[in-house]
Formats: sequence, structure tokens, C-alpha cells
Amino acid sequence: MTAALVLNGPNLNLLGTREPGVYGHATLADVEADCLATGRELGLDVECRQSNFEGELVEWVQEAGRRQADGELVGVVLNAGAYTHTSIALADAVSGSGTRVVELHISNVHRREAFRQHSYLSPVAAGVIVGLGVAGYPLALRALTLLAAQELR
Amino acid sequence: MTAALVLNGPNLNLLGTREPGVYGHATLADVEADCLATGRELGLDVECRQSNFEGELVEWVQEAGRRQADGELVGVVLNAGAYTHTSIALADAVSGSGTRVVELHISNVHRREAFRQHSYLSPVAAGVIVGLGVAGYPLALRALTLLAAQELR
Amino acid sequence: MTAALVLNGPNLNLLGTREPGVYGHATLADVEADCLATGRELGLDVECRQSNFEGELVEWVQEAGRRQADGELVGVVLNAGAYTHTSIALADAVSGSGTRVVELHISNVHRREAFRQHSYLSPVAAGVIVGLGVAGYPLALRALTLLAAQELR
Amino acid sequence: MTAALVLNGPNLNLLGTREPGVYGHATLADVEADCLATGRELGLDVECRQSNFEGELVEWVQEAGRRQADGELVGVVLNAGAYTHTSIALADAVSGSGTRVVELHISNVHRREAFRQHSYLSPVAAGVIVGLGVAGYPLALRALTLLAAQELR
Amino acid sequence: MTAALVLNGPNLNLLGTREPGVYGHATLADVEADCLATGRELGLDVECRQSNFEGELVEWVQEAGRRQADGELVGVVLNAGAYTHTSIALADAVSGSGTRVVELHISNVHRREAFRQHSYLSPVAAGVIVGLGVAGYPLALRALTLLAAQELR
Amino acid sequence: MTAALVLNGPNLNLLGTREPGVYGHATLADVEADCLATGRELGLDVECRQSNFEGELVEWVQEAGRRQADGELVGVVLNAGAYTHTSIALADAVSGSGTRVVELHISNVHRREAFRQHSYLSPVAAGVIVGLGVAGYPLALRALTLLAAQELR
Amino acid sequence: MTAALVLNGPNLNLLGTREPGVYGHATLADVEADCLATGRELGLDVECRQSNFEGELVEWVQEAGRRQADGELVGVVLNAGAYTHTSIALADAVSGSGTRVVELHISNVHRREAFRQHSYLSPVAAGVIVGLGVAGYPLALRALTLLAAQELR
Amino acid sequence: MTAALVLNGPNLNLLGTREPGVYGHATLADVEADCLATGRELGLDVECRQSNFEGELVEWVQEAGRRQADGELVGVVLNAGAYTHTSIALADAVSGSGTRVVELHISNVHRREAFRQHSYLSPVAAGVIVGLGVAGYPLALRALTLLAAQELR
Amino acid sequence: MTAALVLNGPNLNLLGTREPGVYGHATLADVEADCLATGRELGLDVECRQSNFEGELVEWVQEAGRRQADGELVGVVLNAGAYTHTSIALADAVSGSGTRVVELHISNVHRREAFRQHSYLSPVAAGVIVGLGVAGYPLALRALTLLAAQELR
Amino acid sequence: MTAALVLNGPNLNLLGTREPGVYGHATLADVEADCLATGRELGLDVECRQSNFEGELVEWVQEAGRRQADGELVGVVLNAGAYTHTSIALADAVSGSGTRVVELHISNVHRREAFRQHSYLSPVAAGVIVGLGVAGYPLALRALTLLAAQELR
Amino acid sequence: MTAALVLNGPNLNLLGTREPGVYGHATLADVEADCLATGRELGLDVECRQSNFEGELVEWVQEAGRRQADGELVGVVLNAGAYTHTSIALADAVSGSGTRVVELHISNVHRREAFRQHSYLSPVAAGVIVGLGVAGYPLALRALTLLAAQELR
Amino acid sequence: MTAALVLNGPNLNLLGTREPGVYGHATLADVEADCLATGRELGLDVECRQSNFEGELVEWVQEAGRRQADGELVGVVLNAGAYTHTSIALADAVSGSGTRVVELHISNVHRREAFRQHSYLSPVAAGVIVGLGVAGYPLALRALTLLAAQELR
Repeated sequence: MTAALVLNGPNLNLLGTREPGVYGHATLADVEADCLATGRELGLDVECRQSNFEGELVEWVQEAGRRQADGELVGVVLNAGAYTHTSIALADAVSGSGTRVVELHISNVHRREAFRQHSYLSPVAAGVIVGLGVAGYPLALRALTLLAAQELR
Repeated sequence: MTAALVLNGPNLNLLGTREPGVYGHATLADVEADCLATGRELGLDVECRQSNFEGELVEWVQEAGRRQADGELVGVVLNAGAYTHTSIALADAVSGSGTRVVELHISNVHRREAFRQHSYLSPVAAGVIVGLGVAGYPLALRALTLLAAQELR
Repeated sequence: MTAALVLNGPNLNLLGTREPGVYGHATLADVEADCLATGRELGLDVECRQSNFEGELVEWVQEAGRRQADGELVGVVLNAGAYTHTSIALADAVSGSGTRVVELHISNVHRREAFRQHSYLSPVAAGVIVGLGVAGYPLALRALTLLAAQELR
Repeated sequence: MTAALVLNGPNLNLLGTREPGVYGHATLADVEADCLATGRELGLDVECRQSNFEGELVEWVQEAGRRQADGELVGVVLNAGAYTHTSIALADAVSGSGTRVVELHISNVHRREAFRQHSYLSPVAAGVIVGLGVAGYPLALRALTLLAAQELR
Repeated sequence: MTAALVLNGPNLNLLGTREPGVYGHATLADVEADCLATGRELGLDVECRQSNFEGELVEWVQEAGRRQADGELVGVVLNAGAYTHTSIALADAVSGSGTRVVELHISNVHRREAFRQHSYLSPVAAGVIVGLGVAGYPLALRALTLLAAQELR
Repeated sequence: MTAALVLNGPNLNLLGTREPGVYGHATLADVEADCLATGRELGLDVECRQSNFEGELVEWVQEAGRRQADGELVGVVLNAGAYTHTSIALADAVSGSGTRVVELHISNVHRREAFRQHSYLSPVAAGVIVGLGVAGYPLALRALTLLAAQELR
Repeated sequence: MTAALVLNGPNLNLLGTREPGVYGHATLADVEADCLATGRELGLDVECRQSNFEGELVEWVQEAGRRQADGELVGVVLNAGAYTHTSIALADAVSGSGTRVVELHISNVHRREAFRQHSYLSPVAAGVIVGLGVAGYPLALRALTLLAAQELR
Repeated sequence: MTAALVLNGPNLNLLGTREPGVYGHATLADVEADCLATGRELGLDVECRQSNFEGELVEWVQEAGRRQADGELVGVVLNAGAYTHTSIALADAVSGSGTRVVELHISNVHRREAFRQHSYLSPVAAGVIVGLGVAGYPLALRALTLLAAQELR
Repeated sequence: MTAALVLNGPNLNLLGTREPGVYGHATLADVEADCLATGRELGLDVECRQSNFEGELVEWVQEAGRRQADGELVGVVLNAGAYTHTSIALADAVSGSGTRVVELHISNVHRREAFRQHSYLSPVAAGVIVGLGVAGYPLALRALTLLAAQELR
Repeated sequence: MTAALVLNGPNLNLLGTREPGVYGHATLADVEADCLATGRELGLDVECRQSNFEGELVEWVQEAGRRQADGELVGVVLNAGAYTHTSIALADAVSGSGTRVVELHISNVHRREAFRQHSYLSPVAAGVIVGLGVAGYPLALRALTLLAAQELR
Repeated sequence: MTAALVLNGPNLNLLGTREPGVYGHATLADVEADCLATGRELGLDVECRQSNFEGELVEWVQEAGRRQADGELVGVVLNAGAYTHTSIALADAVSGSGTRVVELHISNVHRREAFRQHSYLSPVAAGVIVGLGVAGYPLALRALTLLAAQELR
Repeated sequence: MTAALVLNGPNLNLLGTREPGVYGHATLADVEADCLATGRELGLDVECRQSNFEGELVEWVQEAGRRQADGELVGVVLNAGAYTHTSIALADAVSGSGTRVVELHISNVHRREAFRQHSYLSPVAAGVIVGLGVAGYPLALRALTLLAAQELR
């Protein structure tokens, strides 16, 4: 059984309380429980973490790269929140560490402010899932498994 | 059993022969067979069509809107190819007809030319799936079912 | 008695059902009936057509140019819908065929998305009527008659 | 019998003498006589004014808003000339006073300098009529009546 | 006892009636009464004026500069309304006359149209207060006193 | 003897009548006769087609790609008219089908509107000939032969 | 007695030593003492914190949102320093947590580099105070009290 | 003996006191005296006016156009100050009235803010003189005479 | 027998050695020999020159203009290399001297850096040939003859 | 008696023959004779030179700087032609050598292509004279004398 | 003997493993050893640190400023990695603390993505060294010594 | 012993006299002497040249490419002055000739005008050294030796 990381970025700890009209009523705990359940279904040991610090997310992605190189991780589901739009450091961590990443956004960012429509991560991610609500997380884990099976990145 | 449309736009009839380094080796027939199989799994009557004409895609989306209003369709998986980036008419058909749409791109458009990184469809689509290869189609059908179950659009 | 064409572009067949908050409740059939009535009042044989195909609109405008050159047509009321903003081909048909065109928009496009505020047609149209709802059609026919009387284009 | 204002902005007092190739040979007096005649036909007490001062136009629009609120005015035909493109104050007067405005341009501004193609007024006007020459004024009064009848603004 | 000017620009005479959702229900008279009360508290002879004319505001700012140079004025609270975004003349009057200015906006202009987010006045003002509603006026008078006490401009 | 396609896009059926100051007096029939004559000289079976539909041009380019792959076609002379500037679908058809294309413009597009100076086709064409009038067609056929002889694309 | 937070961002610990021509000679300790004094005057328990870490500021704003929801905090005076211009995460924390924020800048940012003239915070802040030197802090606390009294945010 | 107008725009009444480092120490009265002296030398009846109102400058330029058409004026030396950069109305007055204008700037606007480097007047002026200090006025009158002698505009 | 000039600009003396992947293996001597051969075929006395100096190319174009006016030259094939993109002086020489110019680029500049996609020469050239390799030179000479025969420029 | 340089840049040797509609019929020899005559009137030893080489103009400006530092030159009248818009080297020569320069353009560049409306020279020139035809040269020499008299640069 | 800091930013801990085609095979440990050796040669006590946290780099630069003010440090070699392009906070730390900084990039950023070609640090750094590989570090230390010797910053 | 070229571009012959606040007091002769001394230290035969002509610099870089290919040159230290920002020809000479180039700027161009912050040379140079004053020259020669030793370019 191999592992997958689900990394959530800044303010996602507010999920369920923050702007439910935009993000829905599920809390981060709900999402993480859902991811673990999906992991069991897919035979993946899912680990969920959240941080408001860009540097900590950078280091978790680096760690994922090392563990993926060691064959113990299929990749990362990464909802980097606001850092999606501002962090070249995080994008460099993805490309520099060689981690397989499915980028995820809960809301349809394309209906929102212009600055939410550019992602530094998308060009270095394997794929992107946008706007399917929290239901996107299990789909992203499933996508990660499919990509890993084809050794795509 | 309800239906779902899988609409492919211009040049997707070349799939498998056109730039396989970008789009992979599966043909459109392979993709459509895969969609039908997923449809059977999800209890959906999947119909697949392809057109190189913007006007024809507009009319298929309008038809989908009418059938969805009649309760016989869960929505559309729409890979509009190049019209993604140039067709306001197609986006108007989506919003005007009220069709539930999951937009799909086989390749990671964010690694390609700048003009492929703007989509007129994304703001009117329910969700977007990018870069997961042809494996994105079954995931998109699955996403459509989940969205319909929550009556989201 | 001479003729006038009323050409409606993509998605205007949805009129009355599509986003009534934006476009009102009159259907395309209502609009066309209103145009015919105005035509009778002005002594014009009004023909109404709608297409979702850019190429078909191009050909209808070319036809109008030929008939206007033959003195049997005063011009075209053209609501090109989304093609207003994307079709250089349609603008070239107007200027290339020498057709007298009054461009029309039902909604006030200047209150909407930025991309709806540029028209390829306006520089080649004789005049433009925006935002008066479906009441704009009879006014546009009237305007066409006035322009034709002054041999303006 | 209710009233309508026809407001002309800077340099429109030069009409008929200023660049007749662009604006035609009718003078402002001709235009105003035409508007009064149309007013009589429509049962409207038409008042015509012209000013080269942005502040004066702002105050006339404010006055129109008060009189319209009192039910004695159907709205304003506003050809703001160059202030169309530079005056946020005038646009604020329109939206702040709640006046019903049909914006008018004699020439087809879309064939002219780029700076004439942006209007601060259009998003707050009820409708816009462009390029029909001085024949646009009577049509605009007619449009104002139609809009008032539907209580649109 | 020295004086302060409170200058309000175009359409602020509509305050309380114009878009109360944006600007609140207090009228200009209320605001001016509040400024006079604050003036009494701070030992300032507050004079309030409003104009819809750019040129008149320019001249009032020039007058303020002369009176400030003569030591009889601490400065100006300036809500230039729409001229904030379009008037280089007013900004030149501020810098050319050496007047101490606190720029004020009742609404949070940063939540509104893009064109309201550039101010020609800010670089020549001593300070800027935005979005605190009409409560900003007394605070601005207070700020003016503090700045004058430090001889800052 | 192998074949070459000469494809003309929207409004080129108006050639000779449309803006002769820009495009000259030769008709499309004249041009096609000239191409056939050149074909005979070069030992090429030249086929000429014109369409106002983007989708039809896409399919003709796809057909050319298949026939070129089969060794029966040297390539395409493509004057895509207005679609040059708006059709990513057509450019994708060129690159996706592997067709050898010489892009052609009768008029010197660089002396015209800004929007005519960007071509989606140029980066995927083998070469581009601009501004030589209808004399460009025989030269383009000649160029196609030279490129094919060197197996360049 | 309720509380207010005064949060200072990166490099504001250098206050008084860093570019005194721009920021003045008062140190952060001076500013904080001044805030506490104003707090006593207004009946507010003022807490002052400074951080150079974006993530830490995000978490303090989240904390403020929770405490404000619990009725124990009137809001935050936020001088986010350089993060004003680069941190969408901080802006999301403000809007996501529902904190009442008065944004503050000591210097007149509008006289400085272009990149200092865009703030991600302003659209989500209740109000903004710019350029009044360190005297802005007590005014901002006063503003916070006024806004809280009106339950504005 | 014919006449010439010297028109100065907003804030030029501050000349000599306003930013002498930029504009020098000569007052407007000095400049006007200098212009009258030059007029006597050139046989021109020079009239000097200054206004802070855009509308008043528009009307003076219109007046100049009428008088020039009547053969009693050689043209206008126009230093429109800040309105140079913001007033399309003034530019329209110049082109609409047919007045011969030499545009003048005392300071070298090209060393100053970006917004001072665009002039709406320059394309409609006969010529432009920049940066020669107040010595530019007599040179501009001289230039006006030379242009009038050649009937250039 | 009349003459034609073939002018090559900066770094084209490196042809055959410089980036053969981009420009091919033919040397400048090869190209010039080919031009002379084509000249003999067309009855043209072809002169070939190369310079790395913008000023020298300007003077050669001026010379061509004088000789063309004297009837001894049909025009210039001009591959201005990098000066294509930076030299207004060279474009002015073309338009100022009235020389008939066919602009030529060996490589397909539209596949290269953005700055290579703007040409100052194209709007003043008679025609442009791009991307046909060194085979473009004989075609350009042929085009020059055709244009001269029609007295086009 | 001191000297002045009149430097003309690329293509000004074509004066009188090049686009007389734009530049007039006077030749460079006429202009230079006129400058010498004006020089005699002003007591200046005027030297006139023309070059099509950017480097040569750079060196002449450097020479002027040295001679001006030695007190034997009042400055340069510089019509740099196309280099005005492209040559930072020439602007650096002006600022680096300390030469007093009056920049001159014969035609009104503000009525022409956009690229002619930016000058690298203007910010480093003492003043600029535009659009007065060849009559600008004597005025520029006169201006140079006035500036030198005030030791302005 | 005085000290120098060598600060490396995000992802530079991956050096030698991360994209060796771009950054080479030397590890961070190799680089740091090389810096220490160069330090011994130059008589500098070199301290090397790396962080993925923007806030930590800000604090280290602040510390460097204090130690440099105390005369115990010559300055900082700063390779801020991705923060180069996004961190105004780090640039403010450099200018606010008065630290002497040589900015360094291992790869030639000018051959890479557009967003890597803007540095917030360069305007506040003493100098910049780009593209010399890891050999840039010893050169940067050498440069720091030379600058300190001249008391330049 | 092999050679290195030190090439200085336009206006660098003014070094020491031109804007010493920006460039320092060392003359070009001083710099060249310093380079020769460094060359002796590094075992390099250093040749120094300066030109104000773009074409001459192009030819020197071409010469360097030939000599480097022959193994007699390690490369070029190139301070192209203003041509850095305007000369594509020079950049093409670097890439076309295969010369190893270290680009150098004496001043910190990033603190100066925007147009000095783009370099056509940087993407084709091996490395770039900015802002270290004339001390950059010996460092650049040292860098050239290191790069040559690793056969990097």
C-alpha cells in the first residue's frame, strides 16, 4: 500500500465557515475524512495536512518529492489556496522535487476575481480540477492513481 | 436511466494521429467506447458526437439544455478544442440554455501557448478538468453525476 | 415596395427563454412578427432569418449586398449576437458587399462583460442601436429607411 | 403632457459649421426644431439646451432626475459630445439622479479615434444610438417614450 | 481660531438621495453640520462648499493656498467626487498652491469600478481617508489639525 | 503527377467586386484559372475551393493532411481571409494534420487594421506570402513545389 | 471593555530606524504605546503584535475573526507593510474570517513606487487611512470604534 | 493690424508663485506684457486671457475660430495647462472651429509625470513648442505669424 | 536590361555558419550566385550587397530610389535582418525614396521570439515573403519583376 | 562670435523630394542656407551637418558637448529624424556630453504613426519645436540663443 | 576579520538534485564549502544559511543590517530564489536595514520564464551577478569585499 | 596564452566625464589599463576597443566568434551601453557567431529608467554582471576564464 498527500493551503482551515456561498458547508475535517475513505477504497494511505505558511507548503512538497522518488508515494493533491496565484516558490518546489501533483480548486475560480485566474502551479502540475466543490478531492485522488499507473507526471 | 452528452470539438476527430506527444495515442473511437463503458457503470445513456463547426456545437448544447430541462439529461462533457478559446457563441449557448457542463481538456493547456490559457467556457461551466489525458473523460462523466445529484450547475 | 432583411445570430433562437432578466420575455417569433408589422407600416417587405453558423450569416450578408446593388433591398438589421465580438469575417462581408447595416443589441452590452464591448461590426455598420430591448428592432427598420432615403451607408 | 430634455454638450453649438463631412450640414437650431416637432407628435414638451461646461450638464441631469421623480419628465436625450469620453461626473449624475437617458452620437464614433470608442455614459444610460446622423434625435425621443411606457431605465 | 475648508465636488449635493446603498442616508447638510460641530470642538472655523464645476474647485483650492500661506487656514478636506479620477487641473491646484489637503472618499472606492481606483489627488495630498462613510469627515478635520501641528504637508 | 489544393476562405468569393482598391479587379474565377495554368506548368493537379465556413476549411485541411501523408498531395495554398486572424481551429488543423501550407494574403495586411496583423496560421505554416496581389497565388504554388522537393514543412 | 488588535507586518519592527525620511522617527514601541493610550481613552483593550511572516499574520487575522464573532473584539488595525501588495492569502483571511479591518499606511504610498499603489487588502477592508504618519494609528482605532458602533464592516 | 489670442489654462494664474523650480519666477502679468510687446513688434493686436474653466477655454477657442474666419485673427497661442492632457472638448473646439493654434508648454513636460506626455491638442494644433520657459510665448507668436503668412494650419 | 538590388543586413554574412538549424547551410555567396542566375533568367542585372551598418543600408535604399526614378532599376529585395524589427530609419528610406521593395525573411519569423514578429518595413514594402528558406530570394526577384510590370509599389 | 551646430539625421538629405505632402518642398540645402542666414543675424557661426549613421550623430553630439564646455558653442539644433524614436545612444550622448539641445521636427509628428510620438531625446533636450515646417530651424536657433543667455540647459 | 552572510532562499536546498540541466550538479553543501574557502582567502568569516520561509529571510537580512552597522559584517550574498520575483518584503528589508547586498542567480534567468526576469531586489541591491553557475558565489563574495572597501552600497 | 576582447559601446568613451554621479570618475583609459593588468594576472592577452557604431560592434563580435572557434580567444566582456537595450543585431551577432560573452553594466541599471531594464543581450550572454562600478570589468574577465575552463557558453 502506497501513500498520497492531500495538502491544503492558507485559510482552508476556515472551510465550512468561510464564505459558504462560495465554498460550501463541508469543513476541512469533513474533507479529510472523505479523502481517507477514498484512500481506503483505492488502497492508498492518505495523509492530510494544512498550513497557512508558504514555506511549510514548500517543504511538504519537497518531502513528497523525496518519498515519491523512493516509491512510497503516488503524489500530492494540492489545493494551495491563495498561494496558487502568488507563489513561484511553491511551483518551483513542485518542478524541482519532481512530485506528481493534481492541483485542485473547490470553487470555480474562473467566475471570480481576475487575479484568481492565473495559477503558477498549473504549468508544473500533472492536471487541474476546478469548481466541483469538495467532491473534487476524491476525484483528484482517483486521478492521481490513474496518472501513477501510467507513470505520467 | 438518464442520458449524458459527450461533445468533442474541432480536430478531435484527429485524436491518436494528431500530435501524439501532446494528446496521446488513443483515438476518438477509443475515447467514445470508454465513455460508453463508464456510462453503463454509472447508469447513464452516453451519446458521443464530434463536430468541426462552431454552429453545430452551439445547436447541440442548446438541444442538451432543452433535454436537461425535460429531465432526461444530466449534462454535457464538453471538450470544445480550439473553440474553447475563441467562441463566445458556445459560451452563450451554455449559459443561455442552462446546460450543466463539465469542460475538459486532454492536454495541460497551461504548458502551451498563451492563447490556450483563456477559456470563454470556464466561467459558465460547472467545473473544469485539465491535463489528465483521455482518462479525464470518465472522470468528467462521474463529476457530472455528482453535480446532478446535488442539483448544482 | 422594397425589402429589408432582419438577421439574428447565434442563440437568438433562445430569445424569451434565455436569461429573461437580460433579454426580456419576447420570443424570436414575437420579434419577427413585430418586424413584419413595422415593415407593412413602412412599406417594406421584411424577411427574417436566424442562424447559429458564422458562415451562413456571412452568405446572407453577401446576398443582401447583391440585392441592394440591384435596388431591391434597403439594407439589413443585424443582431449578430456573440459573432459581433469575434467575427471579422462577418464585418468583411458587410464592408465587402456594400450592404447598408444597422447593428442592433437587445441588452445594454456596456453593462456586461468587457469582451461584449468591442464590436467588429460597428466600424462598418451605418449605425448602432443598443439596449432598447426588442423595441430596438422596429426603430432599426425605421432608421434603415431614413438612411436609404438619404442614400447614406 | 409630460416633458423631455434634449441636452447637447461641448461644441455641438458648432453643428452644421464644424466638420460637415463628419457631422452633416444641419445646425443645432435645425436639430432642436426637429426635436420640438417630434415632441408635438409624441405629446412631449421637449426642452433643448446646450452647454460647453461639464458642471452645467451635470446640474441639468440632476434637475432632470428630480423632475422625473416628480413624474413630469420622461427622460433625457443626451449627446454629451467630448464629455462622453472623459466625464465620470456626468455619468455619476445620471446614475445618482436616476434619470432615464438615451445616449446619442451623430457620427459613427466607432470609425474614429480610439478614444472616442469608450463612453463613461453607456453603462448608466438606458440605451445608445450611434451614427444615424441628426435623424437619431427624433428616434431617441421615440425610444425614450417607449422605455418610459415600460417603466424601464 | 483658524479656519479649515471642507470642499465637496460633483454630485455630492445629491448625498442622502443618491445611491444610499453606496453612500448612506446622511445628506450634505447633515455632513456640513457635523463638520461645523467638529470644528467647534477643535477650535477651527470650518467653511463648507460644494461645486459641480472643476474650475470652481480649482479656484477654491487656490484660495485655500493663499489663506494658508497667510496663516489663517490649516488646510482643506477635499472630497472631489468624480474629479478625483479625471482632474489633473485640481491636482495641479493642490501642488501649485501649496495647500495642505486630506483627500476623502465616503465609499470604499476599492470595491467599485476600476476607474475609481486611480486618484490624481493622492500623490499631492498629505493623506487619504477612504471608506469610513460620512464619519470620515470629522476624522479628516482631526487629521488636518494634527498635520498642521507638525507643519507637515 | 501529384496534386495541390488552393483554399480560399470567407468573402474571397467576392473577389473583383469587393473593395477593388484593396484587392484588385481579378475575380476568384480568374485566380483559379491562373492557378490551374500554373499547375499545368509545374506538373501539379491543382484543385481550387472556397468556403465561408470555418468548419469546412478545417475539414479540407484535414483531408489535405491525409492525402499528403498518402503521397498524393504536395500541400495547400491557404488564403484563409478573416479566419487567418480569428481561427485557432484552422491553425490546429494545419499542425494536427501535418499539411504543408503556404499562407497567402492578396493585400498588404501590414498597411491595414491592427487586427489584420496577427495570424494564427503563420507559426504553423511553412511560409507566408503577403501583398503581391493575385500574382501571389502562382508564386505560392511554385514555393510549395520547392518546399516539397526539399521535404520541408 | 472589548478589545482591538493592532497588527504590523514585515519590517515595521525597523520603524524609527528604517528610512526615517519616509517613515519618521517614532519606533514601533512608541506607536504601540500610543495605541494603548488611545485604547484606554476609547475603552478598548488594545493588543499590539508584529510579524515578518505572512502565515503568522494570516493566523492572527483568523483569530481576530473568531474573537469578533464572539463579541470580544471590535476589529483590527492592519498595517501589513509589503504584504499589502503581494498577499492574497491575507486578504482571504480578512474576508474569510469576517474581521472588521481598518487598513493603514504610515507613508503616502501614492507618492512611491507603482507597485505600492495596489493593495489586495483595500477591497476587503472596511476603510483605509494613508499617509498621516504614525498619527494614523490612533485615528484608525477611533474609526474602528465608530464602524463597530454602526455594525459596519 | 490683425489680432492674436494668448490663452492660458488652469493654474497659470499662479505663475511665478507656483513651483518656481519648474515654471520660473515670471508672473502671468509679466508674460502677458511680454506678449503685448512682441505683438507690437509683429504688428499684432495681442489679447491675453486666462481661465480655470474648461468650458470657458472651449468658448474662447470657438470665438477665435469665428474671428479667424472673418480675417481679423491670425490664431491662438494656447497653453492649456492640465487640460492639455484631459480635454477632448478643447481639442474638438480647435478642430471644429478651424482655429490656427500653436500649443505651448513652459516646462519640459517630457521630464515629468507620464500623464503629462500625452496631449489631446497636439494632433489638432499647427505646431508645438515645449520647454523653452516663458520665452516660448514670443516665439509662439512669431511662429503664428509665419504660419498665417503661408496660410498653414 | 534593367537592374535589381539584393540587400542583406546585419549578420547575413554569417549565413551557412550561423544557426544552420534556423537558416540552413547555404552561404551568402551561394545565395548571391543564385540571385545572379535568376537575374539572368529574368533579364535583370542583379547587384548583391551586405552590410552590418544601418546607415549604409539606408543609403543603399536611397540610391535605389534614385535609380528607380531614373528607370534603371526595378526595385530591391531587402532582407534587413535584425534591422527589420528596430529601424524606423530604414523604413523611412523606403517610403521616402519611393523604392519598390520586396521584404524577405529566410526563416519563419512567426515561430520565433515575439520581437521578431513586428516589422517596421512591412507597411512600406510592396510585399513580404517569409519562411521559404533561401529559395525565397529567386521568388522575390520574380515578384519584383511582376510588380514592376504592373507599376505597383 | 560663437558657434551653433545644426544636425540633421537619417533621410533628411531627401528633404524636398521625400513625401513633400508631409515635409514640404524646401531642400536640405535651402534649410541650411536659411540657418546660416539666421546665424549671421544672431551673430552665430552656424555649422550644418547631416548623417544617416547613428554612430556619427552620437560623435557629433559628443563633439558639441566638448566645444560647449570650452565656451565656443551655444548648442545644437537636432533633428534626429527616425533616430529620435529609436536611439537611446543619441539621448545618452546628449545627457552625457552636457550639450544644450533644441530638438526639432519639421512635420507634426503627433498626427502620424504612434511610434513617432515617443522621443528618447525630449527628456534630455532643453526644448522641443514640432510641426512648424522648415521655419522651425531659424526659430530653434533663436531659442538656443535665448537659452544660452540664461545659461539654461 | 569581518563576516559575510551567504543567504539562499526557497528550494536551493534541492541544489544538485533539482533540474541539474538548469542549475548544475553541485549541491548546496558544495557551494557553502566553496564560499567558506573563498572567505578564508579573502579574510572573511563566511556564514551560510538557507530558508524556504520569506519571513526568515527578511529577519536574516535585518540581522545583517544591524551587524553591518556595527562594523562586523561586509554584507550579504543573496540568492533569494523564487522570492526574488515576488517578495517586496525582502526588498524592503534590504533597503530598510541598509545592508550591502550582492544579488545572485545561478542560472541565466533571462533565458527562462518572463516572470523570472523581474527582480524586486535588483533596485535595492548594490550589484547583481547572473548566470555564471555556482562559480558566481565566490565572485560575489569578492565583489562584496571590493564594494565594502569603497564604502559603496 | 589566449586572448579576450573587452568591447565598450556608445558613449563609454565619455567615461569619467559623463555623469560621474552615475558612472564614477575612472576614465575609459583607466578601465582598459585595469583590464590589461587583470589579463596579465590571468594569462590572457586582453584587447580593448570602443565604438559608437552598432555595425562596428556587430563586426567585432563576429570576429570574436571566428577567433574563439579557432581556439585563440576565451570570449568577450561586452558593455554595449545603450545598444544593450535597442540592438537585436548585436544580440544576433552573439548568438550567430557563438561567442562566449559576459555582459557588463557599470551602473545598477535596475535603479534607472524603465527602458534600461530590458537587455536584448542577456538571453544570449553566458552571464551578466551589473552595478559593481568599473570593478566589474576585472571580475568579468575572471568569470570568462572560469566559463571557458568549463567550456560553458
